[in-house]
Amino acid sequence: MSIAARITELGLTLPPPVAPVAAYIPARQSGPHLFISGQIPMSGGKMLAVGRVPSQVSLETAQACARQCVLNGLSAAQAALGSLDRVAQVVRVGVFVACDPDFHDQPKVANGASELLVSIFGDAGRHARAAVGCPALPLGAPVEVEFLFDVR
Amino acid sequence: MSIAARITELGLTLPPPVAPVAAYIPARQSGPHLFISGQIPMSGGKMLAVGRVPSQVSLETAQACARQCVLNGLSAAQAALGSLDRVAQVVRVGVFVACDPDFHDQPKVANGASELLVSIFGDAGRHARAAVGCPALPLGAPVEVEFLFDVR
Amino acid sequence: MSIAARITELGLTLPPPVAPVAAYIPARQSGPHLFISGQIPMSGGKMLAVGRVPSQVSLETAQACARQCVLNGLSAAQAALGSLDRVAQVVRVGVFVACDPDFHDQPKVANGASELLVSIFGDAGRHARAAVGCPALPLGAPVEVEFLFDVR
Repeated sequence: MSIAARITELGLTLPPPVAPVAAYIPARQSGPHLFISGQIPMSGGKMLAVGRVPSQVSLETAQACARQCVLNGLSAAQAALGSLDRVAQVVRVGVFVACDPDFHDQPKVANGASELLVSIFGDAGRHARAAVGCPALPLGAPVEVEFLFDVR
Repeated sequence: MSIAARITELGLTLPPPVAPVAAYIPARQSGPHLFISGQIPMSGGKMLAVGRVPSQVSLETAQACARQCVLNGLSAAQAALGSLDRVAQVVRVGVFVACDPDFHDQPKVANGASELLVSIFGDAGRHARAAVGCPALPLGAPVEVEFLFDVR
Repeated sequence: MSIAARITELGLTLPPPVAPVAAYIPARQSGPHLFISGQIPMSGGKMLAVGRVPSQVSLETAQACARQCVLNGLSAAQAALGSLDRVAQVVRVGVFVACDPDFHDQPKVANGASELLVSIFGDAGRHARAAVGCPALPLGAPVEVEFLFDVR
């Protein structure tokens, strides 16, 4: 099954790729590596939620935000590659969680992203990961996720 | 035009490379990849500004700091490579902004770095990027930027 | 001398590799690169210290935590590679320090990790590095460290 079909089977839809809003670009390929810029949980032109976890954004909502970051990152990858079937494996995922200073469940938020990648790519979706807290993220996003893929 | 000439044409000057102050080194090459350590906006031996954005450091000053981080990173790259003409492309830039908890314009700060890279390298300067907030950075720096270049 | 023997000579012991607790994995190889997930200072099933530097965790303790993160990361690398003698060089280390907003000695904390890597690997242990502050890290860890190795 193609990755696009698998995404549909999961009841998910990739958003249209977002045009670059600055001098940086959504994806840069370097040999077999595809680096995807940090994604925030925009959907349909607005942020899924705004604020810090957990005082302003619940853990569950933050996990949904992490999943949206994956969809946005895959949209950027698809635009760069033509097809997500060219993704050989997910290599590394960096997860930044805007959180209160006493919140220590960044891994649970990040699991929203990690588990979706495995649902979509299977074993090839398993990856090294760093998950950390931040005081604030772009546009008030509760989560930002960046990706490194191997491509063929 | 060489990259060195382009930097001069822009009215900019690369600082002398800074000697390593710890067990880490300014640049490490791995095959075609050159990783540059996180750069802070030191210039002439002192920090351009100290503190958090925007309560202690303005957005405009933070953007200038991000540009200085680029110059410092290019100085490290030049010392490692002999010539910046060996940079094939900028691959990834990581931008950390020391900021107040309600500041969400990390991308505008990071644009200071991204736009300068494009001014210097043209399309080869366009890159994937992650920009996030931090409560504090080394020596009170308002901005820290790390770089990944492809080299030839 | 093998790296394992060198670690013993330094009076250190690698912990057993930790089983993955989520969809992510401790290590992912991509060609000659081995990415190690962000490590926290767990030792014998408990955290060496919990809290922010320096109000809740001293600089010295944070440095010890950074060293433990190295041991945990090397344990993950050894499990992935079979032998640490396959590490050709340390390429990049990312250090996140949970700290108070007025703490600016992240590099001193990170030196705990960097200096141990050089003690173990010699010149091959020298690396590019980014060290930044965070408000909070997983499970209350004062330090999280991720690694990129070149392998042969």
